[in-house]
Amino acid sequence: MFDVAIIGKGPAGISAAVNAFARNKSVVIFGGDSKKVLLSPSIPNYPGLPEISGKDLMERLNEHLKLTNATIINKTVIAVYAMGNYFSIQAENDFYEAKSVILATGVDFKKSIENEDTFLGNGVSYCATCDAPLYKGKVVAVVGYNHESVEEANFLAEVCQRVYFIPMFKGNFKLKENVEIINDSPIKFEGSLKAEKLILKNNAIEADGFFVLKDSLPLTSLVPGLEVDGPHVLVDKRMETNIKGLFAAGDITGKPYQVAKAIGEGQIAALNAAEYLDQKK
Amino acid sequence: MFDVAIIGKGPAGISAAVNAFARNKSVVIFGGDSKKVLLSPSIPNYPGLPEISGKDLMERLNEHLKLTNATIINKTVIAVYAMGNYFSIQAENDFYEAKSVILATGVDFKKSIENEDTFLGNGVSYCATCDAPLYKGKVVAVVGYNHESVEEANFLAEVCQRVYFIPMFKGNFKLKENVEIINDSPIKFEGSLKAEKLILKNNAIEADGFFVLKDSLPLTSLVPGLEVDGPHVLVDKRMETNIKGLFAAGDITGKPYQVAKAIGEGQIAALNAAEYLDQKK
Repeated sequence: MFDVAIIGKGPAGISAAVNAFARNKSVVIFGGDSKKVLLSPSIPNYPGLPEISGKDLMERLNEHLKLTNATIINKTVIAVYAMGNYFSIQAENDFYEAKSVILATGVDFKKSIENEDTFLGNGVSYCATCDAPLYKGKVVAVVGYNHESVEEANFLAEVCQRVYFIPMFKGNFKLKENVEIINDSPIKFEGSLKAEKLILKNNAIEADGFFVLKDSLPLTSLVPGLEVDGPHVLVDKRMETNIKGLFAAGDITGKPYQVAKAIGEGQIAALNAAEYLDQKK
Repeated sequence: MFDVAIIGKGPAGISAAVNAFARNKSVVIFGGDSKKVLLSPSIPNYPGLPEISGKDLMERLNEHLKLTNATIINKTVIAVYAMGNYFSIQAENDFYEAKSVILATGVDFKKSIENEDTFLGNGVSYCATCDAPLYKGKVVAVVGYNHESVEEANFLAEVCQRVYFIPMFKGNFKLKENVEIINDSPIKFEGSLKAEKLILKNNAIEADGFFVLKDSLPLTSLVPGLEVDGPHVLVDKRMETNIKGLFAAGDITGKPYQVAKAIGEGQIAALNAAEYLDQKK
């Protein structure tokens, strides 16, 4: 059981890891580098490192992270469950336990597809690795928001009879034979007990299962019971959410969406998580 | 008239300056380097600059500050007055004007002397440069909390007939002939319309005027009307105080007293000050 689990490896998450380590806590951190930071040609306002490129900053942050004891797990977290005295974290197919959690996933403005939440777990899935076995020999559709979704569509194609791939970004996709690309925009899911059909702008797809693959999941499905305000988590001054022991930091807590704010909040969240752990003893 | 006046040149103040500049605002920043940072042998938890010494960090922050347009004024701010649509800032004997203000003075736990606030402006002063002329040829007492107070006692000695110097720190003091060192602890001021006597633990001093010289002034005398909670300023999520256009950042807003938090809050305060200015237009 880890002391602190950090969901997200951008500036807020790494700051939280560095600070939890400074307080002698064991840390697990999930996720890859922040794409938003990596793509910034020059960041003028992170004090002490003027005009640094996002790539160089991410490298420096990763170097700093390596000086800690943090276990780094490059997997997508599907859900965080509050178990009373500890948290259970599902990262793709694996489960991890931690005494406290810091959410630092960034903010995602992509609108959900209508009924996506209604049918989640009933024909709609956020995780190909987790739920592929349910659709062995069947037909699935993948709405892919990121480059990883191409690989996941191919992985599903190994298991399923047929895969429809609806890319939400541009690119040349190398896909297996039984994957069909559909260039269209998803509107809503339809079905009775489970999702059966995805209505597109110009078309409709029937399938046994639907995968929606994006970088960050809707907060309310990521953490059941979490109090949110639109795309943001509600936190107090100590960066604690409405769930005891669950903290948040960075873009996920609101504007401004900036590195220094994220770094500062990562620190506040980690130091208060450490205090929470010390008081629990 | 400056767009933004920043009181304090530690990590929070410099972060505010860097970020206000990034939003094309004109900036004036008051104060010297943060002594608390300068005295830190190693700071392990400012992400991106692992195990940096306080001295090196302060140097990097100052280098970053030099890349901005900020006017740097190494004077103690005595008072900030909200004038309705702008602020008037008294730095020792000089006055400056700004459309918005960010308080980043750090936090000071030194207890005030009893009745210090009662007699402020009536025989008690926080500024030797400002009020020395009032005591020409008279007797004054100086309670000195910092090294600068030694110089100020000597400056008062040029103007006044006699100066009592009560140092609140250890050192070898080079003082003028008409300065008498009193090694004792101040307890309270007494007087009728104005302060006339300073009661010490083992003694009492009568004087025409009393100077209390410390790095940061009690918040309520620094900014009349400011809502505080003990040594901290009350701020909302946007780092704005109860006074419109007046923001605060860093240790002054509360724990944890840490560099990354201060840097993050300096950014939030500056970006919201910029938004405040843009909306005023």
